[in-house]
Amino acid sequence: MKIVCTKSELLKGVNITLRAVPVRTTMTILECILIDATELDIKLTANDMELGIETTIEGDIIEKGKIAIEAKFFADIIRKLPDSEITIETDSNFNASITCEKSVFNIPARDGEDFSYLPYIEKNNMITISQFDLKELIRQTIFSIGDNESNLIMTGELFEVTEDNLKVVSLDRYRVSIRNVKLNNIYNDIKVIVPGKTLNEISKIITGDAESMVDVYFSDNHILFEFDKTIVISRLIEGEFFKINQMLSKDYETKITINKRELLDCIDRATLFVKEGNKKPVIFDIEDGSVKINITSTVGKMNEEIDIEKEGSDIKIGFNPKFVIDALRVIDDETISMTFMNAKSPCTIRDKDNRYIYLILPVNY
Amino acid sequence: MKIVCTKSELLKGVNITLRAVPVRTTMTILECILIDATELDIKLTANDMELGIETTIEGDIIEKGKIAIEAKFFADIIRKLPDSEITIETDSNFNASITCEKSVFNIPARDGEDFSYLPYIEKNNMITISQFDLKELIRQTIFSIGDNESNLIMTGELFEVTEDNLKVVSLDRYRVSIRNVKLNNIYNDIKVIVPGKTLNEISKIITGDAESMVDVYFSDNHILFEFDKTIVISRLIEGEFFKINQMLSKDYETKITINKRELLDCIDRATLFVKEGNKKPVIFDIEDGSVKINITSTVGKMNEEIDIEKEGSDIKIGFNPKFVIDALRVIDDETISMTFMNAKSPCTIRDKDNRYIYLILPVNY
Repeated sequence: MKIVCTKSELLKGVNITLRAVPVRTTMTILECILIDATELDIKLTANDMELGIETTIEGDIIEKGKIAIEAKFFADIIRKLPDSEITIETDSNFNASITCEKSVFNIPARDGEDFSYLPYIEKNNMITISQFDLKELIRQTIFSIGDNESNLIMTGELFEVTEDNLKVVSLDRYRVSIRNVKLNNIYNDIKVIVPGKTLNEISKIITGDAESMVDVYFSDNHILFEFDKTIVISRLIEGEFFKINQMLSKDYETKITINKRELLDCIDRATLFVKEGNKKPVIFDIEDGSVKINITSTVGKMNEEIDIEKEGSDIKIGFNPKFVIDALRVIDDETISMTFMNAKSPCTIRDKDNRYIYLILPVNY
Repeated sequence: MKIVCTKSELLKGVNITLRAVPVRTTMTILECILIDATELDIKLTANDMELGIETTIEGDIIEKGKIAIEAKFFADIIRKLPDSEITIETDSNFNASITCEKSVFNIPARDGEDFSYLPYIEKNNMITISQFDLKELIRQTIFSIGDNESNLIMTGELFEVTEDNLKVVSLDRYRVSIRNVKLNNIYNDIKVIVPGKTLNEISKIITGDAESMVDVYFSDNHILFEFDKTIVISRLIEGEFFKINQMLSKDYETKITINKRELLDCIDRATLFVKEGNKKPVIFDIEDGSVKINITSTVGKMNEEIDIEKEGSDIKIGFNPKFVIDALRVIDDETISMTFMNAKSPCTIRDKDNRYIYLILPVNY
């Protein structure tokens, strides 16, 4: 194989595919990037068997062929090369030489035939969404997936398409995050659970541009994202997602309207008193016109007061400050509504149009 | 004690004094910042018994007094407060309340009397140097101090004043870094060894502004830096510094002139082949008109060629690439000269005016 391409094009492709290279694995071939120049295009592929990425780069194929190169080392080399043309050439013993200006690297590589290709996916069921919307949806929900592999379904997010609505839900044992976004078309109903890791990686690859679109295809066991010159394929998580509708009642005993920035900054200060092994709740004392927020630990205490508008009864309720911060950070509204039933039931942060709903379980104080 | 000051002024002062707060210590009082408002000014002090910093901040003293507050926690609180006026008030039990807008923190503190004041230094022997020159001198030499406490003198830098010349020298077992800078006046001769840690901290505090000056005072056992509204006092390292003059012969067998950026980038690429536990030298093969640079390890090899001007004989010599990179990174000249005696003797990188001299020992290849 012999190919020629620019450093910038090669580096862009390598950085994208690196996202599917596992950090640790017993199968060393998975630590490689496949450079496939057997057809008309130069394709780079990485595949950790759960998540696979293939991207096409611009360049000239002088001699057809393919090779698998240890991904991290290859990326390090490309990064440090001058911003110029790079030639990659391999011999029959799978030694690769990488030449750029007067610099020549010789490194052992592996037969491309050893590499596992990405699974083939039927492209029947699909939606189209902007890179911006997809990236935002992930950012606004990913923080509340469970990190506990003992409950595999919690480590993923529900993607549910109903007509022209995409609903994304994540939850752990203490909170639920729900986001809804309108799609440009009416689609078939879809309901799948996408691994959190896949969503993390895809959100790092897509630009977040509102004008660029992603085609998302769904099969029984896989999801495929196609955008720019890249495809990302991931297994889905099998099983049925949690039923959350009964948690979404619009009833409440107390409703407050509060400035989001003031609340976020105040609770961020309260986290100073949360130390490992000594987790104290932040306590909301809601009265007419104001909420008193306080936290007390062995190292001291903080008191603060924020103006609010209130409907319904007074309430005193405690939270893990991190959970409140996580939700507030991904809400763009300047003013938010919070509703409460009682000191044992989750608090709900929800906008009028149901674009977002965040439920947070209180803690005892 | 009761004082009022702005968040920005307090935070600036806290960040400066934090540099003298030890990370780990058995004496918990050393983890504190002393707020001293017993006189006309508000002074913040930290002192780890080797290095002490005192800085004066703007503010109003409502009630005189002093208090010692756990430094890191105090800094975290100030950082998270709104950008507004802060009031600090203490009671007779050394409880401190920190109030900013509607936020009130109550934390236990300690009697300021428990705090060790900075030593008194006679201000006889001194020089004046710009913050820019001092910061540059440190940056350009600090990388080659020894980290080995078994040789305490190597963990410091020689500061030697002769008339209007300040020479700074650092060395470890493999290299020597020397910088000379002209002072604005003729001063008494001075020769002291300043701890590397002190220099690291001072270079983080000074702005590096060419117009702002630092007064540096020397006593038998201490060095004192005075600038803006801050003083930094450090113990000196006792003993006599290494005699390096015999290493500085201007004789050579080979001299090359080379583009610094090209050489630095090339050797930076070579570091890809240096792995922990498998340290390979980068080999310079110097001939008329060019130097061939190569490195070979178990994971592959790199070859590169750079144009040079050469005087004297051909030479083949190996280096630890890190040591060459460290020196090249702090040289601003576009073109540099390197001289060599033989493959066992240090290479010298030196400019015409003796502003800098870097010696690097070769390694076997």
